[in-house]
Amino acid sequence: MGQLIIGIDVGGTKVAGGLVTLKGRLMESQVVPTNADKGFAKSYAQIVNLIERLIRGAGGKQNLCGIGICAPGPLNPKTGVVINPPNLPGWRNIELAKMLEKKFGLPAKVENDANAAGLAEALFGAAVGFRDVFYVTVSTGIGTGIIINRKIYHGKNGIAGEGGHVSIDYRSPYRCGCGTYGCIEALAAGPAIARRARVRLEQEHELPSALRDLTHGHLEQISPLMIQQAAFGGDPVAKSILDETGFYLGVWLAGMITLFDPDAIVIGGGVSQIGKSLFNKIKETIPQYTINRFAAETPVLPAKLQKDVGVCGAAAVFLPSE
Amino acid sequence: MGQLIIGIDVGGTKVAGGLVTLKGRLMESQVVPTNADKGFAKSYAQIVNLIERLIRGAGGKQNLCGIGICAPGPLNPKTGVVINPPNLPGWRNIELAKMLEKKFGLPAKVENDANAAGLAEALFGAAVGFRDVFYVTVSTGIGTGIIINRKIYHGKNGIAGEGGHVSIDYRSPYRCGCGTYGCIEALAAGPAIARRARVRLEQEHELPSALRDLTHGHLEQISPLMIQQAAFGGDPVAKSILDETGFYLGVWLAGMITLFDPDAIVIGGGVSQIGKSLFNKIKETIPQYTINRFAAETPVLPAKLQKDVGVCGAAAVFLPSE
Repeated sequence: MGQLIIGIDVGGTKVAGGLVTLKGRLMESQVVPTNADKGFAKSYAQIVNLIERLIRGAGGKQNLCGIGICAPGPLNPKTGVVINPPNLPGWRNIELAKMLEKKFGLPAKVENDANAAGLAEALFGAAVGFRDVFYVTVSTGIGTGIIINRKIYHGKNGIAGEGGHVSIDYRSPYRCGCGTYGCIEALAAGPAIARRARVRLEQEHELPSALRDLTHGHLEQISPLMIQQAAFGGDPVAKSILDETGFYLGVWLAGMITLFDPDAIVIGGGVSQIGKSLFNKIKETIPQYTINRFAAETPVLPAKLQKDVGVCGAAAVFLPSE
Repeated sequence: MGQLIIGIDVGGTKVAGGLVTLKGRLMESQVVPTNADKGFAKSYAQIVNLIERLIRGAGGKQNLCGIGICAPGPLNPKTGVVINPPNLPGWRNIELAKMLEKKFGLPAKVENDANAAGLAEALFGAAVGFRDVFYVTVSTGIGTGIIINRKIYHGKNGIAGEGGHVSIDYRSPYRCGCGTYGCIEALAAGPAIARRARVRLEQEHELPSALRDLTHGHLEQISPLMIQQAAFGGDPVAKSILDETGFYLGVWLAGMITLFDPDAIVIGGGVSQIGKSLFNKIKETIPQYTINRFAAETPVLPAKLQKDVGVCGAAAVFLPSE
């Protein structure tokens, strides 16, 4: 068996690929555009091309264990079928694992991107040494991965671990794209943070805030990054919006601890980079909303792997566990 | 190795014990009072006595694999220590597994009662043949057990699976004994059902209801059973209270499906015996509050094992898995 794994991270705008060792070290990586708007065939050609180059980079197929691909859901890791990801238009019920196995004569597996990232963090990243890990990525959406005994937990249909769509407030005015009210994604992901700031400033005309100046009064242009900047500059409105975000995430993670009693929680994604104040608010909130008396001691760790997390996670599905 | 397991179910008022085969068949069972109010030593003497009789019933120790005990939490199944269950006053940090192992020279394991019941339902009860099962018992409280790959999921400190204390409404006026607002236990367990009926009738003085007659106007005497009776007789208030209960349980279970994508959900406990109307409301609500597109097909099954579930579950922790 080979000593290298090809990891491929398919995103809406670009595809990253790399060679990863059995210890999770990324040896070589390349990025190409996804060309998602040109339909599946074009994106597939990009992926095939990238894999061909990586095989050459590895010195041939005999050095490889397989090809791991992570992509946005919904997809079925058990069958290797990508169903219909919103940001990969034209991809509908694509038997990606089968197609690549046939093309390259190497085993191929497909995994949900948040699950892959969670596995990578548990095996090589922030949660090395832990067995049961709850992984969260907070950016445009909120994705989660449930790692049990160092493996991804998939559930019956391969779509377990959609923690971003668990509601903490079924009476919330905020309805998520999934149809549920008060999902944590609808309260604390990037767009939700921006919306809460905008709504606050629209409702309180007189309330001064640096966000009015930063957007020249066009409140619809408020972004999470802008809120972070304003908060950093001391703006009370921006600070309270971020505090609220930490509170929501804390209430939600408290429930996850009540259920999973994990060894560690790892938080990645753009929003997690808001930094220490957000993590502090999360940690302060958790023990107030859980029955788990060890909750305050559960490590809540910032993700470690950054931009390579997808490639490493995709490769990690080929690692022997235990 | 022996072919029988001793299962012991320690409750607040009585201790049940039995001999269980490796296929989960209960061969013999006995019940004695717990004498919990007389302190730990008295309860322990009852348990030891019961085990001695069961060993004789089994024809001697050589026919036994071990002793499984389930008890109300909090307890630590990893260390076999019962911490401080509210309805076993005087039990504080009792090393129950160790004590019994020393006393009888047989392996002993301690398990949380909801976990044990969930395992029993998954292995011998309503969910036979399924791998990943979410078990719920709704009575005075709401207990849950997470069964993954036919084994109990414990988490780091052995206290995972406290699903009854996950909030679906952190802004709820109903605060749970655990300190959290809007836990499903605070909304849908027996006492919560009775309270919602009482509050409704207190607030709406003119609202006619059979519950006023059944309690002779003493609304504080409303019980879940009374509500069930009144609903059965067609009382609209009682019916709406039970409908609300099904709705709350449905919203909450929707979140559990979003996370676990289980093969099946099993619901036991006294409240589950309200029957078909409750299950129908739960099943109708679930698909509206989850992103899991297979949720409507997830079986929501009434528990099957009834009063022996504790004894069988306690014994089941000794079964070889797979």
